[in-house]
Amino acid sequence: MLAPQPYPLNAVLPGLQQRYQAVRRQTADLCRPLLPEDTVVQPIIDVSPPKWHLAHTTWFFETFILKEYQPGYQVFHPDYAFLFNSYYNSLGSRVNRADRGTLSRPPLADVYAYRAHVDEHMAALLHTLHEAETELPAAFAGVFELGLQHEQQHQELLVTDIKYILSTSPLAPAYINEQSAVSKEQEFRSSLPPATWLPVPGGIHRIGHQEEGFCFDNEQSPHDTYVADFSLQNRLVTNADYLQFMAAGGYQDFRYWLGEGWDLAQQAGWEAPLYWVRRGEAWFRFTHHGLQPLNMAAPVTHVSFYEADAYAHWAGARLPTEQEWEIAARHFEAEATGTFLESQRFDPQPLAPDAAPDQCHQLLGEAWEWTYSAYHPYPGYQRAAGALGEYNGKFMLNQLVLRGGSCATPASHIRLTYRNFFHPDKRWQFTGIRLAR
Amino acid sequence: MLAPQPYPLNAVLPGLQQRYQAVRRQTADLCRPLLPEDTVVQPIIDVSPPKWHLAHTTWFFETFILKEYQPGYQVFHPDYAFLFNSYYNSLGSRVNRADRGTLSRPPLADVYAYRAHVDEHMAALLHTLHEAETELPAAFAGVFELGLQHEQQHQELLVTDIKYILSTSPLAPAYINEQSAVSKEQEFRSSLPPATWLPVPGGIHRIGHQEEGFCFDNEQSPHDTYVADFSLQNRLVTNADYLQFMAAGGYQDFRYWLGEGWDLAQQAGWEAPLYWVRRGEAWFRFTHHGLQPLNMAAPVTHVSFYEADAYAHWAGARLPTEQEWEIAARHFEAEATGTFLESQRFDPQPLAPDAAPDQCHQLLGEAWEWTYSAYHPYPGYQRAAGALGEYNGKFMLNQLVLRGGSCATPASHIRLTYRNFFHPDKRWQFTGIRLAR
Amino acid sequence: MLAPQPYPLNAVLPGLQQRYQAVRRQTADLCRPLLPEDTVVQPIIDVSPPKWHLAHTTWFFETFILKEYQPGYQVFHPDYAFLFNSYYNSLGSRVNRADRGTLSRPPLADVYAYRAHVDEHMAALLHTLHEAETELPAAFAGVFELGLQHEQQHQELLVTDIKYILSTSPLAPAYINEQSAVSKEQEFRSSLPPATWLPVPGGIHRIGHQEEGFCFDNEQSPHDTYVADFSLQNRLVTNADYLQFMAAGGYQDFRYWLGEGWDLAQQAGWEAPLYWVRRGEAWFRFTHHGLQPLNMAAPVTHVSFYEADAYAHWAGARLPTEQEWEIAARHFEAEATGTFLESQRFDPQPLAPDAAPDQCHQLLGEAWEWTYSAYHPYPGYQRAAGALGEYNGKFMLNQLVLRGGSCATPASHIRLTYRNFFHPDKRWQFTGIRLAR
Amino acid sequence: MLAPQPYPLNAVLPGLQQRYQAVRRQTADLCRPLLPEDTVVQPIIDVSPPKWHLAHTTWFFETFILKEYQPGYQVFHPDYAFLFNSYYNSLGSRVNRADRGTLSRPPLADVYAYRAHVDEHMAALLHTLHEAETELPAAFAGVFELGLQHEQQHQELLVTDIKYILSTSPLAPAYINEQSAVSKEQEFRSSLPPATWLPVPGGIHRIGHQEEGFCFDNEQSPHDTYVADFSLQNRLVTNADYLQFMAAGGYQDFRYWLGEGWDLAQQAGWEAPLYWVRRGEAWFRFTHHGLQPLNMAAPVTHVSFYEADAYAHWAGARLPTEQEWEIAARHFEAEATGTFLESQRFDPQPLAPDAAPDQCHQLLGEAWEWTYSAYHPYPGYQRAAGALGEYNGKFMLNQLVLRGGSCATPASHIRLTYRNFFHPDKRWQFTGIRLAR
Repeated sequence: MLAPQPYPLNAVLPGLQQRYQAVRRQTADLCRPLLPEDTVVQPIIDVSPPKWHLAHTTWFFETFILKEYQPGYQVFHPDYAFLFNSYYNSLGSRVNRADRGTLSRPPLADVYAYRAHVDEHMAALLHTLHEAETELPAAFAGVFELGLQHEQQHQELLVTDIKYILSTSPLAPAYINEQSAVSKEQEFRSSLPPATWLPVPGGIHRIGHQEEGFCFDNEQSPHDTYVADFSLQNRLVTNADYLQFMAAGGYQDFRYWLGEGWDLAQQAGWEAPLYWVRRGEAWFRFTHHGLQPLNMAAPVTHVSFYEADAYAHWAGARLPTEQEWEIAARHFEAEATGTFLESQRFDPQPLAPDAAPDQCHQLLGEAWEWTYSAYHPYPGYQRAAGALGEYNGKFMLNQLVLRGGSCATPASHIRLTYRNFFHPDKRWQFTGIRLAR
Repeated sequence: MLAPQPYPLNAVLPGLQQRYQAVRRQTADLCRPLLPEDTVVQPIIDVSPPKWHLAHTTWFFETFILKEYQPGYQVFHPDYAFLFNSYYNSLGSRVNRADRGTLSRPPLADVYAYRAHVDEHMAALLHTLHEAETELPAAFAGVFELGLQHEQQHQELLVTDIKYILSTSPLAPAYINEQSAVSKEQEFRSSLPPATWLPVPGGIHRIGHQEEGFCFDNEQSPHDTYVADFSLQNRLVTNADYLQFMAAGGYQDFRYWLGEGWDLAQQAGWEAPLYWVRRGEAWFRFTHHGLQPLNMAAPVTHVSFYEADAYAHWAGARLPTEQEWEIAARHFEAEATGTFLESQRFDPQPLAPDAAPDQCHQLLGEAWEWTYSAYHPYPGYQRAAGALGEYNGKFMLNQLVLRGGSCATPASHIRLTYRNFFHPDKRWQFTGIRLAR
Repeated sequence: MLAPQPYPLNAVLPGLQQRYQAVRRQTADLCRPLLPEDTVVQPIIDVSPPKWHLAHTTWFFETFILKEYQPGYQVFHPDYAFLFNSYYNSLGSRVNRADRGTLSRPPLADVYAYRAHVDEHMAALLHTLHEAETELPAAFAGVFELGLQHEQQHQELLVTDIKYILSTSPLAPAYINEQSAVSKEQEFRSSLPPATWLPVPGGIHRIGHQEEGFCFDNEQSPHDTYVADFSLQNRLVTNADYLQFMAAGGYQDFRYWLGEGWDLAQQAGWEAPLYWVRRGEAWFRFTHHGLQPLNMAAPVTHVSFYEADAYAHWAGARLPTEQEWEIAARHFEAEATGTFLESQRFDPQPLAPDAAPDQCHQLLGEAWEWTYSAYHPYPGYQRAAGALGEYNGKFMLNQLVLRGGSCATPASHIRLTYRNFFHPDKRWQFTGIRLAR
Repeated sequence: MLAPQPYPLNAVLPGLQQRYQAVRRQTADLCRPLLPEDTVVQPIIDVSPPKWHLAHTTWFFETFILKEYQPGYQVFHPDYAFLFNSYYNSLGSRVNRADRGTLSRPPLADVYAYRAHVDEHMAALLHTLHEAETELPAAFAGVFELGLQHEQQHQELLVTDIKYILSTSPLAPAYINEQSAVSKEQEFRSSLPPATWLPVPGGIHRIGHQEEGFCFDNEQSPHDTYVADFSLQNRLVTNADYLQFMAAGGYQDFRYWLGEGWDLAQQAGWEAPLYWVRRGEAWFRFTHHGLQPLNMAAPVTHVSFYEADAYAHWAGARLPTEQEWEIAARHFEAEATGTFLESQRFDPQPLAPDAAPDQCHQLLGEAWEWTYSAYHPYPGYQRAAGALGEYNGKFMLNQLVLRGGSCATPASHIRLTYRNFFHPDKRWQFTGIRLAR
């Protein structure tokens, strides 16, 4: 949710309209390669149909901006609030989450019409505000920005949900067919030099959002925290690294595992990360480019927290806390130069073999990094009033914080202070591992 | 499955090709009003995606005819046997039934290409057989006929599954938009004269398939059975009749119900047949024409066996056995003059108010009639050898026999001896009630 | 439930009191070898704690006799109706069936006190009725008899439930320790001559209860039925027979199985009847005498309907219908000379190796025989009014009829017309197999 | 698990034997009021049968001490390791946790014999060690102490599990009958003065076990932590306080709740803490003394984390972190003067109405205090090698830390650094609420 800093709105309105259009276009672009059939199914409860994402993000602008700030606005369809509300109890009843994939109607075409309708009214509203001499509503800028950030979150979900949807077919269809996007065959055999350990000085550090610009409410308030000296590895764990864990019997030895993770792994029959397929002696991965040979140097992804933690145990290390991660990211002055959504690679890229061993790489982009920190409120956190108070606060239990963004995150969406969160069993996001000790 | 009588094949081959085309075209015609989105979802396990029906019926011809009788035939796609095998253990592993609605791929267009491919090879095969002087394989005719009958069964399922799929959306979309297909408003207020009781003499009667033409193996062998004198009602129970049961507290009084039915009704919150919606004081039904006012004179449908049996208890009557039903249908010389698939009404039609009270109406067409007979093998029943032995025999427990066909059954598919079967809790078929005593 | 025939009550009252005492004593005797710990657990929903059986049968007399016929009777405890009502909706809410094993209180001692209290009042009531000159309530005799028969049903359940309860412990404790009750070691190696087929003439036969004495309402009304000529095997299928089925891969070949049976067997990992344990090369069975070597000549028991049917398929035969069974039992003039509860052997006994091959053995006693007949109402069946109308009628779906009684059935409780019924997956009763063709 | 500090063993051996006897006797004493029936049931998976607790604690000494340190020791029974291993994968397969309540055997008497057998051998071992001149095994003292602490943990579970077991019966039986143990009627109407807020200075504080004596491994290593200034309430939230939350619609308003908590509360129908029963206008609680009127001044207990957190939201406050709790407990020099197991009151006692408002009360004893801290490893935490490495470490996810002990905790078992942990939905422990801000 929105940070308290108000924007000097009138000045930035033309830029806002441009950003609005760019973000909205990006969402539609992501869905362009899909067939209508791809946009309605929901193979697991975590995955929402792309049609639903397209509509829900639109409903967000309709509900929180047009209905609030556009006098006399008529909703596009009276049933859409029921159909496309995600989880806001404040806004009434809605389709059961597990049933999103049972709804073939409204058709995709109607959802695009819905998007056009709302985009048109948003443009008109922004124009009106630009022209107006009167004082602007104080909360408008924040909610507008929140709508854009919200849509960017759903862009990442679209990337991961589309991958899952296409993966369920034995046909292993490619989302993108150009082979150029894939690293070349020889690359797959190379592997990286061993990771190095980089020390980070402990002490009292200030974490949480202290910079300019937008942040979600869960990054508030900035506050002091104390950590002892620690070290981080200079890169993410690679597929080659992870294969060693597998070869050492990592999936067969309960001693590396948390109890609930072990039980789940046994029951679900986990033997490798999600999307890994063995063909004879070789491992392949299902990707947005179809089934591809495993790139040894690329960061391992699609592992649950349980697997990440078991790997760390096996490696004689541990996962960092989110405090450590942010302190290190500030210490190493991490920049968003990694692989993000805009690259359209949809896969984390390997570190260059000659990357400097004394620098900390891949902190931003490539893969979300599981931390051993529960997603709890920061000191001083307050839920906002109204429906937007449900945006983040009510999820602050039973989930773990992930940091750093992934190849599916829009580059303009990530920050050092960004707190992503998932339950420890989830594997369909681009989740990876960085070791600490 | 196929009856043992061999067809004089060469003579009938031109007719076969025509019938093949007609049946196959009918399937595609049924799917024409659908959007691609409608063809992939599976809101409950009983309902299969239309795309799956289109492919599975095609796979049936490919598997049991082309691969058997067409030398050198290459399957359209090696993964389709896994994707579109329904339940034949003899033919290997397959998609879990509950997961049919998670598969967006192959796309609908590919499934139509699959149909075209198989149709083309079927035409070529029939042509070759026609030209050949050599002796034909004895089993060919039976399997060919079975393929057509099988596809007709899936036509009925398409009608009922499409209805269910469209019903899940609050938008209540119509499959067919022409209002002309719907009875006029005034008709909905009329109601029929009370049903009359028609006596049927008991004694030893021969039932099971004894006529010419195709039958499934579950209609074999014809055999004698004894029943005491009994009476049947001259028509199906109407919506008006059923509303009386509801008004009398039928859904609130356990005394009318079988124990497992009562528990299910409580747990599922049943208060009316499937698809009934109350709007203020009036009842509506979701139909292929969208939400429509309840036609009082039309047969009640979409009731489970439990509801049918509870209704009969309340009415001081009972459901007939399948033996009684067939004996009565032979006694009254029932003819297939009711509403069937070809009418494209997709809804059982009311009896004319002046229909003769001493004749037995609606035995064939309109609605499947629940009988109080378990779907068990007839005396002398034998499962066929090979995969087709799984067609019917392995389902002969825990289900009840329904007789007479419905408005979704192809007219050429029904017979007096036809044994349909469903579990007692199922409501998504056009299932209705006829009373006996 | 009760048959309509009235008893000449006053004349038989002294005998009634004797029978009452005998039946009630038998129940308590069955529980005598148990520890209090054994009387409270419920390892699966089908099994009720012995303490519950002791109390429920007592509640039956209290509810249907003392509260009805003893003026001013005060119930032993106001909560016992909630605790010990089994399934009578007419009599209000009750403990969820699955929760019977969670209740340690009332303690066993209180339940025995409850029995004594009710027995005392029953004796007083019978004495009063005996003395009275006035006309007796017409229904009294029937309900009294029903109470006794009901308690005998629970005696059989006590035998089977105790067996299951003791079986769950790896200690394999014996209910009865005297080894004399067990056949000698050498007997276990012997096996019987092959079964013979005995023809039974078809035609119209009258079945259902036509004799004097008590019957349940589900044996009413007697009615004509027609069967074709058929044959039955002269004895039950033995453990040796069944081992051949197992050795032939019976549990691994879906072709012998009904579809739902196959799925269940796979999911549950069935590889042998319930209670069978392999130790090295030899098979053992858990019995009331602890773990015992498998007696090859004894009837196989603790098989589900699915296993019985699969065995019959494998053997090239089928299971009889209940009509065939009763017609055959009348034809062969079956008598209750087999092993019953009173023998305290608690295990079906093998046929003598020199038993006449042209006679039909083991029709009554030893093991309940699965029939391929659904448990449906007989023609003319009517549920009684009031709570006792729930005794049988509401269970008449989804279950199969078993005939003939078992080694756990009281000898005075069995009849040729007795219809027992269980769901097809149940294995904890002494259920066996007789083949027909 | 054991702290690293070695004990000067020989010197303390006589004391050890005394402590061993005292702890073991306390366990048996707790079970003395039970009937054998009470000792075998398991109404929910969290609750273990008392018989199981009696045996499992004995198995612990047998496995980790006698088998390790007593040469030639023969286990009491070879099946007991399977029956009474709780969760140690290192020690092989075991009874499924959910099935503990299905096992009537071994009987209670055998379990007491098991206890006597192990106690005898433990006494002999301690005597031998006392006599010996040789060096003692270094780890012995730690494991011995761990066995006692482990048994004390199960004493607390016995208290709470017995309460749950007795609560399932509508008879509401009392574990202890003396009414003297219950506060007098008039006390129930009184209520306490409002809680006061006590400030605690922030900064860097050292937490974790730094004192002499035993601690579990999860209290290791002591480490610095930073907190900002905060305040705690001077007492626990009372039943009267909690009733205000209920009266204000706390259970009906999703805004106070975490999302998963709200869903659970709706689904489970929570409307009050566990064990609360409304009779007319008044609230009662099921206690070890049977059903008792609600004592307004006593701390509320048997609330889940979700309820504790919702209460805090409603009250405009929050729950403390475990760091805050321990810092405050050290700051206020909390002493174990509250109500503990030894008092045999089995219910948290109200604060005296004239308790000093500027002191912090009830930090130790009465009720475990939910903290908003995930149960994660402390910095530097290492799992021990071998089976005891499974004691704590594998549970360090998805649970929350509770602090301070309860009326069911042995007084000698609690410490300022003690970290108890439960999933957020659990209510059967004596869990309470203290507010922070």
